[in-house]
Amino acid sequence: MHVMIIGAAGMIGRKLVERLAAEPDALGHAIALLTLVDVVEPVAPAAFSAISETFALDLASEGGAERLVAARPDVIFHLAAIVSGEAEADFDKGYRVNLDGTRALFEAIRQEGQRERYTPRIIFASSIAVFGQPFPEKIGDEFFTTPLTSYGTQKAICELLLTDYTRRGFFDGIGIRLPTICVRPGAPNKAASGFFSNILREPLAGKEAVLPVDEDVRHWFASPRSAVGFFVHAARMDTDRIGPRRNLTMPGLSALVGEEIEALGRVAGAKAVGLIRREPDPVIRAIVAGWPTNFDARRARELGFTAETSFDEIIRIHIEDELGGKI
Amino acid sequence: MHVMIIGAAGMIGRKLVERLAAEPDALGHAIALLTLVDVVEPVAPAAFSAISETFALDLASEGGAERLVAARPDVIFHLAAIVSGEAEADFDKGYRVNLDGTRALFEAIRQEGQRERYTPRIIFASSIAVFGQPFPEKIGDEFFTTPLTSYGTQKAICELLLTDYTRRGFFDGIGIRLPTICVRPGAPNKAASGFFSNILREPLAGKEAVLPVDEDVRHWFASPRSAVGFFVHAARMDTDRIGPRRNLTMPGLSALVGEEIEALGRVAGAKAVGLIRREPDPVIRAIVAGWPTNFDARRARELGFTAETSFDEIIRIHIEDELGGKI
Repeated sequence: MHVMIIGAAGMIGRKLVERLAAEPDALGHAIALLTLVDVVEPVAPAAFSAISETFALDLASEGGAERLVAARPDVIFHLAAIVSGEAEADFDKGYRVNLDGTRALFEAIRQEGQRERYTPRIIFASSIAVFGQPFPEKIGDEFFTTPLTSYGTQKAICELLLTDYTRRGFFDGIGIRLPTICVRPGAPNKAASGFFSNILREPLAGKEAVLPVDEDVRHWFASPRSAVGFFVHAARMDTDRIGPRRNLTMPGLSALVGEEIEALGRVAGAKAVGLIRREPDPVIRAIVAGWPTNFDARRARELGFTAETSFDEIIRIHIEDELGGKI
Repeated sequence: MHVMIIGAAGMIGRKLVERLAAEPDALGHAIALLTLVDVVEPVAPAAFSAISETFALDLASEGGAERLVAARPDVIFHLAAIVSGEAEADFDKGYRVNLDGTRALFEAIRQEGQRERYTPRIIFASSIAVFGQPFPEKIGDEFFTTPLTSYGTQKAICELLLTDYTRRGFFDGIGIRLPTICVRPGAPNKAASGFFSNILREPLAGKEAVLPVDEDVRHWFASPRSAVGFFVHAARMDTDRIGPRRNLTMPGLSALVGEEIEALGRVAGAKAVGLIRREPDPVIRAIVAGWPTNFDARRARELGFTAETSFDEIIRIHIEDELGGKI
């Protein structure tokens, strides 16, 4: 089986590569060829029993999507996107990469299928940014998508395209709306959501972290391991069970920042909690206030997608996957 | 004020032209220039106190949208689209006309505004085809858009673009989701929805009409006069009242085919009703079964949009507007 990951150099892309390299039959059939694509050349997995190849390629570039699809991969994970802040700052780039790049991929698959029958499984990384406030207390599976960012708009449009191309039989698509991923590995970044991870990851490594919001801020989380699990499950599941509504809000954990901190205390002790420095930031507070806080992700759960149910679990997964099991 | 109607040769476009020609201050300011655009050259209004101009132009053609926007109209009604059946039969044409044409218009406005401040009012004709079954008993304003046709997908995507371009300040957009328009004037056509109008219009003119479904079929209606009223209201209303959710399901009448027929009897007598010939058509029955039947269009009503509340009213409007007030 030939598997392609577009956006393989990003955080979730890299973790998905690791998982598939460690477990080459994770998708139900042995992977014979793993193609890794990103705008910067991705790193091939160190230990992998089959063949992997890497490409630096911009999906929105002339002929880029056609080049990828010509090899007729059986499964394509499409995780490539520029992030919310950049799509907001650069209108043209956001639409070019996040909308036109995705549409070019879908179109290339359709064209390839017109030459000779070809209906690959496409797993598209969408986002809860397709939703815009005001929200109900829990966002259900039938709540409308009224994004308040260009990034969310681009994701919502790609979801619609994915559904129509699937309905037409051009490919077999699933859109995966990811929760905020926590604990993100790596150095603190400037994303407005960064603190959710920083206040766990840094204290667990004995370092200080800044908390810019109050402890009663609620948000929607899943671990990087769960995120990879969503993509793997979407690639191997029986899609007849989904029906025509192809975009799924993934399960997650709705939790308060205060609950994050309590879990940190239980897992790593009061000393770790003491490394969190409160430094209220009204700008970040305002941005975060516009984000969804809770979902009833019933459809995805019924379809077998699973995520963490406590922050203790999220923290333990970080310790296992990033810190060699020890703090 | 300079007003442009794109799609001016269509049924609603022609009626909108008539209304603006008869009432040149309908939009709150006197119209000095009325520009009529369609893929076939529209007919200029016979009696109009100001200047009108007509263009045959394909919005999706190279430079087409830029040509229109260069004149910097204050209000643009965008009604141009290929219909549902054609968009389903010709995938490429549907996306080119209904999506790329609309996006080209929005983009041309943004580019024009980058040269010199320009934020026209854009009224976009959307459709209840953005919804796909299964439906709740009444579709509320927060129900999600999961179209089951390429046409509905294209309309839903344009709605998202309209909202994002409006949020960014590139123009002041409103999307109008039209009910099925009844009574459509003119000859019977082959649209699957045609019979809803045929069974009224033809008997009112002393002719036979075919009813291909049962009398207990429910559907969602408004008159052509109401449709024009929606567009006029959208062009002159205070859009600050709408907020960021710019696409509105228009009010309408939810009624059974049997109720249509009863109203025909009340207005035109048993002889007219006797001209309806039952000829069940399983294909049309199946298509119609997938359509929405009822909405709770609260937001639009609160924003001042109005439609008929009985089929007697819809029939009387047809008699007034199309039959010179007499049957």
